[in-house]
Amino acid sequence: MRVDGRSNSELREVTIERNYIQTAEGSAYIVVGNTKVICTATVEERVPPFLRNSGKGWVTAEYSMLPRATQTRTIREASKGKLGGRTMEIQRLIGRALRSVIDLRALGERTLWLDCDVIQADGGTRTAAITGAFVAMIDALVPLVKNGTIAKMPVSDFLAATSVGIVKGEPCLDLCYQEDSNADVDMNLVMTGSGAFIEIQGTGEEAPFTADQLSQLLALAQKGTAELIQMQKEALGENAKLI
Amino acid sequence: MRVDGRSNSELREVTIERNYIQTAEGSAYIVVGNTKVICTATVEERVPPFLRNSGKGWVTAEYSMLPRATQTRTIREASKGKLGGRTMEIQRLIGRALRSVIDLRALGERTLWLDCDVIQADGGTRTAAITGAFVAMIDALVPLVKNGTIAKMPVSDFLAATSVGIVKGEPCLDLCYQEDSNADVDMNLVMTGSGAFIEIQGTGEEAPFTADQLSQLLALAQKGTAELIQMQKEALGENAKLI
Amino acid sequence: MRVDGRSNSELREVTIERNYIQTAEGSAYIVVGNTKVICTATVEERVPPFLRNSGKGWVTAEYSMLPRATQTRTIREASKGKLGGRTMEIQRLIGRALRSVIDLRALGERTLWLDCDVIQADGGTRTAAITGAFVAMIDALVPLVKNGTIAKMPVSDFLAATSVGIVKGEPCLDLCYQEDSNADVDMNLVMTGSGAFIEIQGTGEEAPFTADQLSQLLALAQKGTAELIQMQKEALGENAKLI
Amino acid sequence: MRVDGRSNSELREVTIERNYIQTAEGSAYIVVGNTKVICTATVEERVPPFLRNSGKGWVTAEYSMLPRATQTRTIREASKGKLGGRTMEIQRLIGRALRSVIDLRALGERTLWLDCDVIQADGGTRTAAITGAFVAMIDALVPLVKNGTIAKMPVSDFLAATSVGIVKGEPCLDLCYQEDSNADVDMNLVMTGSGAFIEIQGTGEEAPFTADQLSQLLALAQKGTAELIQMQKEALGENAKLI
Amino acid sequence: MRVDGRSNSELREVTIERNYIQTAEGSAYIVVGNTKVICTATVEERVPPFLRNSGKGWVTAEYSMLPRATQTRTIREASKGKLGGRTMEIQRLIGRALRSVIDLRALGERTLWLDCDVIQADGGTRTAAITGAFVAMIDALVPLVKNGTIAKMPVSDFLAATSVGIVKGEPCLDLCYQEDSNADVDMNLVMTGSGAFIEIQGTGEEAPFTADQLSQLLALAQKGTAELIQMQKEALGENAKLI
Amino acid sequence: MRVDGRSNSELREVTIERNYIQTAEGSAYIVVGNTKVICTATVEERVPPFLRNSGKGWVTAEYSMLPRATQTRTIREASKGKLGGRTMEIQRLIGRALRSVIDLRALGERTLWLDCDVIQADGGTRTAAITGAFVAMIDALVPLVKNGTIAKMPVSDFLAATSVGIVKGEPCLDLCYQEDSNADVDMNLVMTGSGAFIEIQGTGEEAPFTADQLSQLLALAQKGTAELIQMQKEALGENAKLI
Repeated sequence: MRVDGRSNSELREVTIERNYIQTAEGSAYIVVGNTKVICTATVEERVPPFLRNSGKGWVTAEYSMLPRATQTRTIREASKGKLGGRTMEIQRLIGRALRSVIDLRALGERTLWLDCDVIQADGGTRTAAITGAFVAMIDALVPLVKNGTIAKMPVSDFLAATSVGIVKGEPCLDLCYQEDSNADVDMNLVMTGSGAFIEIQGTGEEAPFTADQLSQLLALAQKGTAELIQMQKEALGENAKLI
Repeated sequence: MRVDGRSNSELREVTIERNYIQTAEGSAYIVVGNTKVICTATVEERVPPFLRNSGKGWVTAEYSMLPRATQTRTIREASKGKLGGRTMEIQRLIGRALRSVIDLRALGERTLWLDCDVIQADGGTRTAAITGAFVAMIDALVPLVKNGTIAKMPVSDFLAATSVGIVKGEPCLDLCYQEDSNADVDMNLVMTGSGAFIEIQGTGEEAPFTADQLSQLLALAQKGTAELIQMQKEALGENAKLI
Repeated sequence: MRVDGRSNSELREVTIERNYIQTAEGSAYIVVGNTKVICTATVEERVPPFLRNSGKGWVTAEYSMLPRATQTRTIREASKGKLGGRTMEIQRLIGRALRSVIDLRALGERTLWLDCDVIQADGGTRTAAITGAFVAMIDALVPLVKNGTIAKMPVSDFLAATSVGIVKGEPCLDLCYQEDSNADVDMNLVMTGSGAFIEIQGTGEEAPFTADQLSQLLALAQKGTAELIQMQKEALGENAKLI
Repeated sequence: MRVDGRSNSELREVTIERNYIQTAEGSAYIVVGNTKVICTATVEERVPPFLRNSGKGWVTAEYSMLPRATQTRTIREASKGKLGGRTMEIQRLIGRALRSVIDLRALGERTLWLDCDVIQADGGTRTAAITGAFVAMIDALVPLVKNGTIAKMPVSDFLAATSVGIVKGEPCLDLCYQEDSNADVDMNLVMTGSGAFIEIQGTGEEAPFTADQLSQLLALAQKGTAELIQMQKEALGENAKLI
Repeated sequence: MRVDGRSNSELREVTIERNYIQTAEGSAYIVVGNTKVICTATVEERVPPFLRNSGKGWVTAEYSMLPRATQTRTIREASKGKLGGRTMEIQRLIGRALRSVIDLRALGERTLWLDCDVIQADGGTRTAAITGAFVAMIDALVPLVKNGTIAKMPVSDFLAATSVGIVKGEPCLDLCYQEDSNADVDMNLVMTGSGAFIEIQGTGEEAPFTADQLSQLLALAQKGTAELIQMQKEALGENAKLI
Repeated sequence: MRVDGRSNSELREVTIERNYIQTAEGSAYIVVGNTKVICTATVEERVPPFLRNSGKGWVTAEYSMLPRATQTRTIREASKGKLGGRTMEIQRLIGRALRSVIDLRALGERTLWLDCDVIQADGGTRTAAITGAFVAMIDALVPLVKNGTIAKMPVSDFLAATSVGIVKGEPCLDLCYQEDSNADVDMNLVMTGSGAFIEIQGTGEEAPFTADQLSQLLALAQKGTAELIQMQKEALGENAKLI
C-alpha cells in the first residue's frame, strides 16, 4: 500500500475552483492532495516580436512557488535575481503543453499568459499547474469568443497532465512528494482528451527502465489524465461544451 | 459617501484565517475588502552574519505580488531579475515594523522570516501584510515558547497597520485602490496595541497637507488599528493571551 | 547638550554653493555639518514611456554615496550589480518630494534628472540632498523660462527637508550620524515654503512614540525647514524671485 | 527519402576524436553530420556543499554554443548576463544522464565537470553532447583508477543518446536541423549499453502522438544508440574494456 | 634558450585554416603553438543605434575562452552572469584593432561581428585572435564586394598582432604562457602590413622599463607581425590580392 | 596653437588638495584643467582569497564618473547593474599602475583600496586618477609606518600618469576632451620618479603611427610626468620625504 493509503492506480483527491482571482480574465485554484496551485490566464492584445504581423497569437506560461510552499523555506528567485533551471524547465513545459491544443492563428495576434503559482507543494506541481491552467485559459477565452473578438474557440481538445513513476518496484500514478523523492523512475505526461500524448518526460536517474515498464507507466498516466479531464469538464460546466 | 459605500471612518470587511499554509510554522490569510494576502512565518535557526554570536535574533520580511493580483498583469520581479524600489521599500517597512515589538535578545539567535504574498490587490496591501504577518509570527513563536526553546514570549505588544488619506478633501480610513490612486494625501501607519506609533509614512505628492489635517488622519488610523488588533486577538484565540 | 554642542532646536552649519559642476545645467554643493552632497540637475528633452504624448514632464532623482563617504568603506552598488533597498527608498523619496512642487504640465514633455551624490556622510544625507537638489533644479529651469522654452516658471513653492528625532529622550533637530544611530525615534520631513507638509517618514523601531512627541518633532522640523528655505533664497539670489 | 538522402533508420556519419583538448583531463570531439561538439571532462577534488562529508562525488555538465554555431549569429549568454531556459534544460539533462551510469560513492568526494561546447550546430546537439561527454568522462576517470585514486571504475554501463521524430508522417532516426524544425513529434532518448532507458523526452507540440507511434520511435532510438555505443567502444579502445 | 627551444626572435609555429565553421560568412582557425582560436566573421545588415542613418558601418568583436582552454577549469562568464574585466578589455582591443584598417563608410550601414573563441590557451590568445579575425573578416567581405553589395574592398591594409616581453632579462618575441607569467615586461602590439603601429599595450608591473628596452621590443614585434602577415597572405590566397 | 592656448608640450593647470574627504585614511582632490577627480585611499586589514596566508598585501582601484561629470548625462553603472568595459579597463589600469611601485610583502596582509571618482570630466580622467591616487595612498600609508604597523614605507618610487597624442598632426601633451576626441593617436603613459615606464597604452584607431612619432610622444610624456611628480612632492610636503 502507498504512503497515503492509495492504490497504485489512484489519483489523489482533486478539486478545481474557477474564478479564484477576480482581477484575472480567467483563473483556477487547483488542489491535488496537498499540492495547491493558483492558475491565472491573462489576455494581452499583442504578441512577442517574432510573431508581429504574422496573424498568429502566442501562449506562454510562468511558474513560481511561494517560499513556504515547501517544508523548508526556499529563497525567492526574485531575491536571487535569476530564475533557476528547474523553474525555466517547468514553465517552458507548461507553455509548450498548452500551445499544443491551441490554434494560434484562430487566437489571432494576442498573447495568453498563464501564471501558475504554487502556494503549497507536495509533488506534482507542474502537472497540477498544466491541468489548472487549462481551465483558467478556457475561462479567459470564452468571453472573447462570445463577444466576437475571436471567431471560434481556438482550442482543439482538452488537456491534462499527471505524474507516474516506479516506487519500490511498483508502477504508481500521481506521486506525492515522499514517493517522488524515492522513485527509481519518475515521469510526467501531458495527454489530450482524445488520449494522445503531448509530452512525455521520463527519467531513470536512479535506475534505467525497460520498454515493458514504460508501457505500464503510460497506461497509468492514460487513466489518470482521463479522470482529470473529466474533472475539468465538470468544473467548466457550460464552458466545457465550447471545446 | 465613499466609492464602496463606507463611511469615512470605516474599515473594509476584514477576515484573518490562521494556518492557511500547512507547510509553514505559522501562517495567516488576511482579506481586507478585495485585498488578499498570504502571510507565512518561518523560524530559521541561524542569524545573518552581522548578528552571529550576538545572542540576538532577527526578524525580516519579504513581500511580493502575484502577476495577476492587479487589474493588468505585472511582470514578475524574478523574470526581470531584480526587485523594484516599491517592493524593497515595502519589505523593509514590514520587517522594521514587526521588529519593533520583538525582543530580539529574548528571541535568541534565530531568524523569523515573514513572507507576505499578495494574491489579489485592491489597495492597502502593505498594511494588510503587516497585520497578517503579526498573526503568522505569533503562531510560529508560541510552540517555541511552549516547548521551552524560547524562555518567554518575545513579543512586547500587538501591532497592526492601516492606511489613511485625504480623498476629495475628506480624511478617510483604509483606502481601496480607487481611492488611493486619487488621494491628495496618502499615509500608512503602524501602531501598537497600546496606541503608540511605530511608523508613519505620509506623502502629499499631489497636495501638501497641514498639521490639522495630519491630526485628523492620525485619529482615523488610531481607530482603524485598534479595530484590527481586536480582530487579531479574536483570530489568535488562546495564543493572544500569551502576548 | 548635544554631542556637537548644539541646542536641541539648532541646525548644523549649512552652506550651499551654486554652479559647482560646470558640465551640468544646474548644480549645487550643499554642506550640512560634515555631510556633503553634490546635486546636479539635467534637462532631458524627452519623458519616460508612460508620459509620452501626455503633454506632461517628469522629475526623477538618483542618489548615491561614494565608497568612502562613510567611516568604513562601503562596496559600490555598481560593483554589486544592483541598487540596495536604502538607495531605492531614498531616490524615490527625493523624486517624489521635488515633483510635489513642480507643475508637470507647465514643465512640458521633458525630464529633470536630479543626481545627488554624497561625497561625505554624517547623517541627514537624504534631506540635504532634497534641499540641495531644489537649488540645482531652479538653476536648470530658469534659463528655460528666460529663453522661452517654458512659458512660466513651473515651480509652485520652495521646498526643503530636514531630520528630527528623539535622542536620549529629547526631541532634536537635524541629527548627525552619532545622534541618528542612537535615536529612539527618527523622522525625515519635507516641507514647503508655505509651511505645509509634503512628506513625513518617521519610525520608532527602537521605541514607539506618542502623538505629543510627534507634535514636538513636527514643530522642530517646521523651524528647521524654514531656516533652510531662507538659505536657499539667499543662495539663489535673483533666481529665487522667479518662484 | 530524407533531406540528406538517408533512410529513416540511419544515423548521420559520426566520428569521435579523443584527446582533442590537451589541457583537459579527458576530451572528445564528436561530429554527427554537420553537428560538431567539443566535450571536456574535468576532475575537481571537491564536491558541492550539499555533498560535503557524504563520501559521494558529483557529476555535472555545462553546455554552450558558439555564437556562429548557427546559421544566424546567436547572442552570447555571457553578454546577456544569464543562461537561457534552453541551455539550462540541456545542461541539466546532460548531467542527469551521465550521473545515471556513475556510482557516486565509488567516485569519492570529487566532481566531474563535463563541458560541452557546440562549435557547429545542425540538430541533435544535446544528444551528441551526451554521447561525446561519455567518452571524455571515461578518459578522465581511467588514470584515476590506474593510479589508485579511485579503487574501481565507477561506471556501470555505456551511455549514448540520439534523437528520433516523426517527420512528414515518417518515424525517423537522428534528425538534422531541417528535419527537426519541421517534425510533428520530436524526442530525445538516452540509453545504456544494456538497452535500457535513462531519459525519454518527447514532445508533440505540433501534433499529439499515439502509443503505437511512440513504440516505433523507441525502436529507432534503440537501434541508433546501440550503434553509437559501438563507436564509443571503438574510439575508447583499451579504455572501453574497463567499463 | 627559451623554454620551448626557440630563439628570442622566433615565433611559435603558426597555422591558419580558413572556412573552419561552415555556418559563418567567414571563419579561421588559428593555431599559434599550443594556443588555438576559432574566429568567425558575421555580417549583420544593421548598425548599432549611434550609427543609424550615418552611412557608416561598424566592426565589433567578442572574445571568450572555453572553460578547459586553461590548465585548470575556468568558470564560464555566462554562469557568473557577467563578463570579467579581462574579457572586456580584450574584446575592446580586438574590435578597435580591426576597425583601424576598415573604411567604415565604404562598409556601409552593416556590422561585422568578429567572434574569437579560444579552445586551448597557451599565452598570446588576444594577439592570435586579432591575427585570425583579420582572415575571417576578409573572407566575409570578399563575397560582398564580388556581388556588388559593397562597391570596393573597405580594407586599407593587412593587420596582425603579437606579444613581446622581457623574460629573464631578455627581450623575446611571442611569449608562451609560462614565459608570459614570469615576464618583467609584457607587451601586445598590433601592426599593419606597412609596418605602422595600431596599438601598443605594455605593462611593467613587475619592473619598470626604459626607452631602450622599449625600442628592442618594438623591433621584435615588427619582425613577428611581418611574418604573421605573410602567413595571412598565404592563407588568403586570391582573396589577399583584393586588399 | 592648441584649443585652450597651450603650447604642445604644456600641461594644463594642475592642483592637488590633500585630505579632501575627512572620513578616509588618505584622500586627494586633483584638478587637471577642467577634469576633477576625488581620490580616496582605504586600508583594509585583510586580503583577497588568493593572497590569504601569503604574507603579501594587495592594492586595487575602483573608478567611476558622476552622471553629470560629462556634457550630457551618462547613465549610472549602478542603475544599469553592471560595469562597462571602459570602467573595468580603467580601474584595472589604475590598480596595476599603483601596485608597480608597492612592495606588497612590506605592505603585509592588508588591502589598499583606491577609489577614484570623477566629478567633472574634460579628458585625461584616468591619468589624473593615477596621479591623485598616488598622493592619497601615501597619506594612508604614512601613519601605518609611523605607528609601526608597517616596518618601512613600502613605496619604491613616485608615480604619475599623463596622456599624449597626435592632434592635427602635432604631438601634444595632456589632451583635453576636445583634443582627445579628434586625435589620430591617443596614448596614456604611467611613469616613475626615476623616469622609467610602467604602462604604455597607445592606440591609432584613426591613423597608424610610426616609431618616430612614438618617440616624440614618449618624450612629451616624460616631461609631463616629471612635472606632475614635482607637484605631488610639493603637495605631500614632509610625507614626500618618506618615499
